[in-house]
Amino acid sequence: MTLATLDTPAALIDQARMERNIARMQQRMNALGVNLRPHVKTAKCIEVARAQTAAGASGITVSTLKEAEEFFRAGYTDILYAVGMAPSKLMRALALRSQGCALKLVVDNADAAHAVAQFEHAHKAGFEVLIEVDTDGHRAGIRPQQDALLAVGRLLHEHGVKLAGVMTHAGASYELHSPEALAAMAEQERAGCVLAAQRLRAAGLPCGIVSVGSTPTALAARKLDGVTEVRAGVYVFFDLVMHNVGACALDEIALSVLATVIGHQQEKGWVLVDAGWMAMSRDRGTAGQQHDYGYGLPCTLDGTPLDGWIMSGANQEHGILSRAPGAAAPAEAEDLRARFPIGTRLRILPNHACATGAQFPEYFAVSETGATAAWKRFYGW
Amino acid sequence: MTLATLDTPAALIDQARMERNIARMQQRMNALGVNLRPHVKTAKCIEVARAQTAAGASGITVSTLKEAEEFFRAGYTDILYAVGMAPSKLMRALALRSQGCALKLVVDNADAAHAVAQFEHAHKAGFEVLIEVDTDGHRAGIRPQQDALLAVGRLLHEHGVKLAGVMTHAGASYELHSPEALAAMAEQERAGCVLAAQRLRAAGLPCGIVSVGSTPTALAARKLDGVTEVRAGVYVFFDLVMHNVGACALDEIALSVLATVIGHQQEKGWVLVDAGWMAMSRDRGTAGQQHDYGYGLPCTLDGTPLDGWIMSGANQEHGILSRAPGAAAPAEAEDLRARFPIGTRLRILPNHACATGAQFPEYFAVSETGATAAWKRFYGW
Repeated sequence: MTLATLDTPAALIDQARMERNIARMQQRMNALGVNLRPHVKTAKCIEVARAQTAAGASGITVSTLKEAEEFFRAGYTDILYAVGMAPSKLMRALALRSQGCALKLVVDNADAAHAVAQFEHAHKAGFEVLIEVDTDGHRAGIRPQQDALLAVGRLLHEHGVKLAGVMTHAGASYELHSPEALAAMAEQERAGCVLAAQRLRAAGLPCGIVSVGSTPTALAARKLDGVTEVRAGVYVFFDLVMHNVGACALDEIALSVLATVIGHQQEKGWVLVDAGWMAMSRDRGTAGQQHDYGYGLPCTLDGTPLDGWIMSGANQEHGILSRAPGAAAPAEAEDLRARFPIGTRLRILPNHACATGAQFPEYFAVSETGATAAWKRFYGW
Repeated sequence: MTLATLDTPAALIDQARMERNIARMQQRMNALGVNLRPHVKTAKCIEVARAQTAAGASGITVSTLKEAEEFFRAGYTDILYAVGMAPSKLMRALALRSQGCALKLVVDNADAAHAVAQFEHAHKAGFEVLIEVDTDGHRAGIRPQQDALLAVGRLLHEHGVKLAGVMTHAGASYELHSPEALAAMAEQERAGCVLAAQRLRAAGLPCGIVSVGSTPTALAARKLDGVTEVRAGVYVFFDLVMHNVGACALDEIALSVLATVIGHQQEKGWVLVDAGWMAMSRDRGTAGQQHDYGYGLPCTLDGTPLDGWIMSGANQEHGILSRAPGAAAPAEAEDLRARFPIGTRLRILPNHACATGAQFPEYFAVSETGATAAWKRFYGW
């Protein structure tokens, strides 16, 4: 199958771009002297993770136990489940542990820690547990200075749970876009997580792992002293949100949606394609950023952006392409039917690769020769 | 499995509400004297479609050929593929036709009509084709008064393609909320589609099917003279967008997401759950409506809404529940950990049932006794 014959809509991975993105992040982590533990929630695809591992990544991060199970089956054993543990998920996690998976869990409060400790007492699971630290006020975690940090650490340790370390995620970095602000956020993330580790150690508690990360802070960090590993996910594909953040150039975005022109509304300047929000996802992450791409940036088949065009509207299986508000109008009125005949194929760059990828059962990896290979993507919980 | 033991997040269907929604729409269509051809893109689930058929629906509407294939395999033969036909999809459509599927296609322009005619000439597929009519300026279609309507009709008919009728979709109805405006939009949709049919017939062209529909206009229509069938989809579940439109009460929403409390940020008034945007979808359809529910409306396990609460934020696998902006604060500061202990299960009503359902490989249908049954949902193209 080629880009001319694949059924549309289809999710395409530009393999050369993906390999360059992987190499760039790995080189950066090597230079900073830390392990890279990629977050596989972005692609949920074994072939993508293998490319990351082949480049030097060590272990993986997952956002669901389903991911842990799928990747364990594919041979991954060092897996960090980076969402606060719900007690009702412990039996399912135990099943992985019993098969030899070095599954690492996360807690950020005494009640969850207590549930893990009780479970450990009953089942001798041998889970390693990390305490989630809040370094940016974005979501979950205990702030590094809070008493609760030591209380949770002691609760785990004194009940015989392996306290493996601390982890944080500076998700607030997605709201930034200047190199200085990103570097400052990276330092805030590093310093907060290292402080938490130091406080635990000073209290006589073990803290081997100091895990930080988000794609923007990973790329912006100038030093990572005291950090042992970085987690990042979306860098493998990048997307328009990351482009607005300043983390990548447009021509580094490796994921796109192949779409076919199915109609026009000439008077409105609309070109209709067969990729709507079911294909692009409902993610409007660029809406609040410097450059709003609507539901995506249309490109020709070779990946060249259509200057001034966006996907301005989307229904379930219809996408509306039009000139972006404020884009320079062409000197003469365009005949859209002539410029984009019915059947024309385009590639749409997504706002958010994690959300767009999630809409598809498979990716088509496109090599530099134009050959495609189907790579399965799983979903669900 | 019960609501206390299912893995979370999970998509729940309240079976009694779904059956009432189906009965309500069917009774309405019976009273107006038209066929109901439900749009199965909402649920993509055989069990749901069977309940619609059992109540009296006739044929189905699909948004992808994958849906057509899956439902044909399940015994459905009268299938309208309601997205403008891309020439590259004709071979796949032919495969269905050859197996006996009465597949109906849609075109809204001469180029697509020409491609269908050429294909028909070469393959004698016997497709029935409907012309899409634009009655609200919302998306695709030829306006009823345009010359192009007759040109496309003639092109099809004169090349031996079965011209089966006309269809329209007043998607703009989603932007309304008063009963008068909705009734006016329903009448505009009806009148425009009937006018198109009359013009085709006056030109000596066949036009058996006059197909209109959207959930809001279907429920608001006072008469449907000249219409033969109505298509509607989301009514089977309803959602918060439909509630804001005025199409349903909150306690008619049949789809919800079961979630587990995994943390708190007491100072911020946040409760964290294990259902983020991957479960709810990124749909923010209520953002521009009268009442913005964020990513969803949290309810207790029995379905009672938590007054004043919304899912105010969502990351991939984290949802943040908090009081809605403007909601009355409690008289005394609430101890969130006491009110929503770790492990508490909640049900979150979605903004948009089509988008939320799409995130899950299966639904759990919950009967009035609390028993659950897994109903498979398919996806992809």
